[in-house]
Amino acid sequence: MQYFPAALQDLADQFGRLPGIGGKTAQRLAFYVLGLPDDEAQAFADAILTAKRSVHTCPVCQNLTDREICPICSDDLRDQGLICVVADPKDVIAMERSREFSGVYHVLHGVISPLNHVTQDDIRIKELLQRVASGEVREVIMATNPDTEGEATAMYISRLLRPMEVKVTRLAYGVPVGSQLEYADEITLSRALEGRQEI
Amino acid sequence: MQYFPAALQDLADQFGRLPGIGGKTAQRLAFYVLGLPDDEAQAFADAILTAKRSVHTCPVCQNLTDREICPICSDDLRDQGLICVVADPKDVIAMERSREFSGVYHVLHGVISPLNHVTQDDIRIKELLQRVASGEVREVIMATNPDTEGEATAMYISRLLRPMEVKVTRLAYGVPVGSQLEYADEITLSRALEGRQEI
Repeated sequence: MQYFPAALQDLADQFGRLPGIGGKTAQRLAFYVLGLPDDEAQAFADAILTAKRSVHTCPVCQNLTDREICPICSDDLRDQGLICVVADPKDVIAMERSREFSGVYHVLHGVISPLNHVTQDDIRIKELLQRVASGEVREVIMATNPDTEGEATAMYISRLLRPMEVKVTRLAYGVPVGSQLEYADEITLSRALEGRQEI
Repeated sequence: MQYFPAALQDLADQFGRLPGIGGKTAQRLAFYVLGLPDDEAQAFADAILTAKRSVHTCPVCQNLTDREICPICSDDLRDQGLICVVADPKDVIAMERSREFSGVYHVLHGVISPLNHVTQDDIRIKELLQRVASGEVREVIMATNPDTEGEATAMYISRLLRPMEVKVTRLAYGVPVGSQLEYADEITLSRALEGRQEI
């Protein structure tokens, strides 16, 4: 491809490094950006730098924020004694969408995953223990993903929390609302059966 | 989504405006860029601006280049009397990959498409006519895509070139090499039959 301008190839390479963007797509995106008006291309570049500069993790809950303390942690109406532990900032958004949770969050930024070389020291467990040790926390709800690594991480953390006199719970397993039983996998179904409730 | 930092949302919006990138993917990409080291995020932003600044169209063939005249047009070994007309810079790369073509190109930057409000004045037909009118061109090979719009554009241009005493040809239709006949569509097959050659 010696007839591709170097700057265009470089831009395509940058896109190609993003997750889920293959070579062809990266090329298409680079061509698209090249076709944008100057001010829109500038706005795109600025958005990258502004996000990098202004977004950081909240010192309390470790969620991403552009304020000193994130809006959830600094909200007096939220129950600071109830912490929901999630793996990812995106999970906070999912939980908030349910409009059901009135406590605060703790974002681990990952799960323990020996296969991907992520150990307990690579995610924000230490910060969670410090929050709980401060004594104001009544309950910690583990809401990591219901997969092997999420489970293992939740188990690991709950073991660390056990001596700290705090209630540790986790989200209920079961069949998703609106789903169809025939498509539910057998593990979900057996968990739903175990956790059955009186009506 | 009021708990999403504005700068992060803005970056996700920028990604979401790219073709083929949906809301969820845009969010994922924004998170990824946020997780990049500072210098890599800076390199990404720079790549956008550098590409916008340094890449322009070659005044001769209209292909994208970062030189004054593109490497193909300024190559003395290439036959300047043979012009291959393509719709898109990506098509030049595809043609070059065949290592078969020794002439030069003309990039239209689109095809005539009334449905998408692209008229003959929106693509670089005028520039092609000027090149041919200069008198050095012996043959123009139409190599627009073999679809309705590509065909129509090729027909339109060949009509304009007819009074100019230049040979106008187009790429052969037929079954792709390495393909299987049973999967070839009937129009391709009938074109391949029409264009059959003695062996």
